[in-house]
Amino acid sequence: MKLTILGYNSAVPTVRFNPSAQLLETYNRYFLIDCGEGTQVQLRKAKAKFSRINNIFISHLHGDHVFGLIGLLSSFQLLGRTTPMNIYGPKGIKEFVEIQFKLTESFNNFKINFIELTSKNPELIYEDDKIWVYTIPLNHRIYTNGFLFKEKPKLRKLNMEEIGKIQEIKICDYYNLKLGKDFKTEEGVIISNSKLTLSSPHSYSYAYCSDTLYKPDIVSQIKNVDVLYHESTFLEELKALAYKTQHTTALQAADIAKKANVKYLILGHFSNRYTDVSVFKNEAKKIFQNSLLPEELKVMDFEKLIK
Amino acid sequence: MKLTILGYNSAVPTVRFNPSAQLLETYNRYFLIDCGEGTQVQLRKAKAKFSRINNIFISHLHGDHVFGLIGLLSSFQLLGRTTPMNIYGPKGIKEFVEIQFKLTESFNNFKINFIELTSKNPELIYEDDKIWVYTIPLNHRIYTNGFLFKEKPKLRKLNMEEIGKIQEIKICDYYNLKLGKDFKTEEGVIISNSKLTLSSPHSYSYAYCSDTLYKPDIVSQIKNVDVLYHESTFLEELKALAYKTQHTTALQAADIAKKANVKYLILGHFSNRYTDVSVFKNEAKKIFQNSLLPEELKVMDFEKLIK
Repeated sequence: MKLTILGYNSAVPTVRFNPSAQLLETYNRYFLIDCGEGTQVQLRKAKAKFSRINNIFISHLHGDHVFGLIGLLSSFQLLGRTTPMNIYGPKGIKEFVEIQFKLTESFNNFKINFIELTSKNPELIYEDDKIWVYTIPLNHRIYTNGFLFKEKPKLRKLNMEEIGKIQEIKICDYYNLKLGKDFKTEEGVIISNSKLTLSSPHSYSYAYCSDTLYKPDIVSQIKNVDVLYHESTFLEELKALAYKTQHTTALQAADIAKKANVKYLILGHFSNRYTDVSVFKNEAKKIFQNSLLPEELKVMDFEKLIK
Repeated sequence: MKLTILGYNSAVPTVRFNPSAQLLETYNRYFLIDCGEGTQVQLRKAKAKFSRINNIFISHLHGDHVFGLIGLLSSFQLLGRTTPMNIYGPKGIKEFVEIQFKLTESFNNFKINFIELTSKNPELIYEDDKIWVYTIPLNHRIYTNGFLFKEKPKLRKLNMEEIGKIQEIKICDYYNLKLGKDFKTEEGVIISNSKLTLSSPHSYSYAYCSDTLYKPDIVSQIKNVDVLYHESTFLEELKALAYKTQHTTALQAADIAKKANVKYLILGHFSNRYTDVSVFKNEAKKIFQNSLLPEELKVMDFEKLIK
């Protein structure tokens, strides 16, 4: 699983920083998470293949998370895309996109499936043979979800040394062994799967939580994830402002990370009032050591990060 | 009069080039012309004061000319703007902006006056004591206007040497002299204004024409302007494609410039198929010598250009 942060600025785009957007890659699937203005150019800088993006997840309908969506979809169209696109986002996202296509007299050559979200409870919104994606309901000034991306349990590895000792096991039996099933000989003797296989490779998981008030009830849902991106718009010194604007402080984000026992926390969505963003990392590290600052366009490989 | 081109790319934004947007400055007025995605960041790079922009002109509702508008207006709002904003654009621009403000639950602290255009004839759409702005109806796949910005005639300069010879002329008479009026002595003798004043400084004019099919009937309206920006999406070799997509070739843009007797032609809105855009200038120069390529973020001072 690999994460590329395309932008993490809050509110207003600047010359230095782009608004929220991330690209998550796993098993050759490319999930785009949020799409602030300028995301399509950031995707080009990241050398991402536009055609591989088939699923876009929008946390909420504030401009810094969604104003790049229509431009990206228009470019897909101009570049001749025909593959359908799935867009997951708050109720209203369909009208948001379709009215702009109508007024710009753009007629799409690819179908857009809108999956409009309204629930206040976590929902499984995407599933294929390798991946689950769940919503993480958040508390913000407008209806907002985070997203939890989980690789499904992987197949167990064959212990070829042990398997070699039992002539009866044929290649066609391997898949059942990888699934964790025991082996039964012709004579009816059961050989435990644990003797014939080794444990599965790690299944990676990633949680994206932006924007939100400090919301400790998400902890149970994101427990033990490998990487958590959690907004930290302010420092603890502006806790009252964070509460008023329904954002989180770096210390609060670290508290969530600690309680959820995640492996790494990435901070982001910093207020423009802070010129040196290392203060966020310093504050979070007071209670959660593995706190990281985001880096635009750097590919973060979870396997390398965690090993 | 000073022009800063913020972007001139056609269709799809790229890492190298931004979509259409220009900032025209005259008499401390800042007119924003078109607003493709990323314009607000380009304005910051140009060090333009956001608060000075009170009038935005949108040529047509194709994404590469308008997708940056909502982000710019949102940033105005987040930065605490209270001054009203005038937006001139095709019918539909009001719905385009307002639906996005509604869906993003943004409530404006400044008033937006939408001046929705529908006429197929040139109209005077803006006037103050110094400036006129007219539409230049164009032919494109969607309803489109160019814009003609004209400084009003300036006051004549006083010829102090001649004025000094006539004691009767007081300071309070100067304004009438600057307006071009003759002076009448107490004895009823009329002294011609041309004896007492020198000619007015030049009144600058600028015409923006994008996007359009080759449309020679605009020539009469833009006759003798100082600077003409005219789209040239293709070279003459792709004249048929230009016709089909309702765009202009560099040679056709030069033909318009020549017929209109403009002082300078700026080409732009180049198709992404051309990596070396100097070919546009070379083609245009065949029939119009003062053909220029656009340069992002360079301030073009008409006074220095033309003297």
